[in-house]
Amino acid sequence: MPEVKAQDQDFELHIRTSFGKQSFMRAIGAELSLVSPGEVGIVLPFREDLLQQHGFLHGAVIAAVVDSACGYAARSLMPHGTTVMTVEYKVNFLAPAAGDELVARGRVLRSGRKLSVCYGEAVARAAGQEKLVAVLMATMIPITDRPLSA
Amino acid sequence: MPEVKAQDQDFELHIRTSFGKQSFMRAIGAELSLVSPGEVGIVLPFREDLLQQHGFLHGAVIAAVVDSACGYAARSLMPHGTTVMTVEYKVNFLAPAAGDELVARGRVLRSGRKLSVCYGEAVARAAGQEKLVAVLMATMIPITDRPLSA
Amino acid sequence: MPEVKAQDQDFELHIRTSFGKQSFMRAIGAELSLVSPGEVGIVLPFREDLLQQHGFLHGAVIAAVVDSACGYAARSLMPHGTTVMTVEYKVNFLAPAAGDELVARGRVLRSGRKLSVCYGEAVARAAGQEKLVAVLMATMIPITDRPLSA
Amino acid sequence: MPEVKAQDQDFELHIRTSFGKQSFMRAIGAELSLVSPGEVGIVLPFREDLLQQHGFLHGAVIAAVVDSACGYAARSLMPHGTTVMTVEYKVNFLAPAAGDELVARGRVLRSGRKLSVCYGEAVARAAGQEKLVAVLMATMIPITDRPLSA
Repeated sequence: MPEVKAQDQDFELHIRTSFGKQSFMRAIGAELSLVSPGEVGIVLPFREDLLQQHGFLHGAVIAAVVDSACGYAARSLMPHGTTVMTVEYKVNFLAPAAGDELVARGRVLRSGRKLSVCYGEAVARAAGQEKLVAVLMATMIPITDRPLSA
Repeated sequence: MPEVKAQDQDFELHIRTSFGKQSFMRAIGAELSLVSPGEVGIVLPFREDLLQQHGFLHGAVIAAVVDSACGYAARSLMPHGTTVMTVEYKVNFLAPAAGDELVARGRVLRSGRKLSVCYGEAVARAAGQEKLVAVLMATMIPITDRPLSA
Repeated sequence: MPEVKAQDQDFELHIRTSFGKQSFMRAIGAELSLVSPGEVGIVLPFREDLLQQHGFLHGAVIAAVVDSACGYAARSLMPHGTTVMTVEYKVNFLAPAAGDELVARGRVLRSGRKLSVCYGEAVARAAGQEKLVAVLMATMIPITDRPLSA
Repeated sequence: MPEVKAQDQDFELHIRTSFGKQSFMRAIGAELSLVSPGEVGIVLPFREDLLQQHGFLHGAVIAAVVDSACGYAARSLMPHGTTVMTVEYKVNFLAPAAGDELVARGRVLRSGRKLSVCYGEAVARAAGQEKLVAVLMATMIPITDRPLSA
């Protein structure tokens, strides 16, 4: 990927503020671990109430954090005053997710004025070992923040 | 779609038991509303801790319930002694989800020995009105239950 | 789906003109069989040079015609002076495609100012019997035609 | 990605033979440019009869070659006596494809006994410059070759 530059100098602040407003991310215990131009990381400690019927981390939770990482990666390259919405994503689950924590990474493949396309991965960490458990491809759309009064 | 028949006479019991074991479905408050051969419905009341940064239901939660509806729809046509795993899905978010509750439906497009393909939708209900908020296409794989002792 | 209306009264003419300009559609022998507001059909007779290694119609050809049907379905609801581009699609292949002809249908699930979302299917016809061979979900973007001189 | 090894020592011969049987690949002029364990490349010279309505390479043709590259990448890690079928794929088109030739690469993300998952990209080459025009994620299934007589 070519070197990328943020247009919005305060992108990290805006991403951290937006992430903090997502009650669902808070509810599952996800935290931002990396915020850089074109790439964002999220860490999620495993927890008893986030499992599917076989005792592994629920796929929806995995998709949630990878999708979020992708969305904020897209946001990191957008102009000031923009928020990002997920148009769609496709996720493949590669292996059951067990261990200590899930680490998701989202990366921008193309950042456009109308749409951005991102690729994301999630690995499960257990006792220092990492296993790739999911890959995701997403289309994101920038939304211009509406002024509070106009 | 041609008329479909369940191979497993106790499919409803098995689906309800499996659903009950998903701690994540319980954590978000999702409930099975329909279990029929080839089609399953799930209802989710809106809740403060399931939102994204703009105050709408988080896309991950929407995808979670539609994916579950699709998975159990696929399971309803599989033989006794089978569980189902999501290989992959693709979801499009069509409109912000606000209102009283989310209603998801999953339907089997093809039920095969090796793989099943499903289509799902989610509508948001508010004051008796329904709005289509997401569509999902998923590939499911049957897993033969391992005997408890062998 | 709610009843839909075309904004562009000449949508059928514009779709037929655009289709006629696609050298690839002509090369494979695809023809428009239905052009209505929100739904478009394409028929493709099977041919020796469109096969994969097992002698069935190549998946890429199937995806091509369903994607085209979806794109023109989206176009049918867009304003005058608009062309449509495929942002992305996801296709599931359900069964090998053999027979006399492939019939693809594309239908609009949501028509928006910025994006449209479509669902499409392809059936293979053989001796009067139809078999569902592929389903596709696509995101389309309207592009305003540039004036020839400005 | 960890180092990968082919199980089938003659994988390259089998891939080249299979590719040669695809009448559609021959019809569009695609050629294998790389066959290695876990990664396959295909080159397609641009041609007048492979275009969409705006004069760029048709998305279906791009998807076809990336999907093929992914399928053969998956095949390269499968046992002797196996062929591969595409279960599904999702493709994002990132930029219009113009130039001299299209170069597609498919890479295995996970090779399993029941399913493989691949990631692919296509770049358009023009005057020595490369531009990323599409990314694709695919699920592949191994099919055991049926004996000729049984």
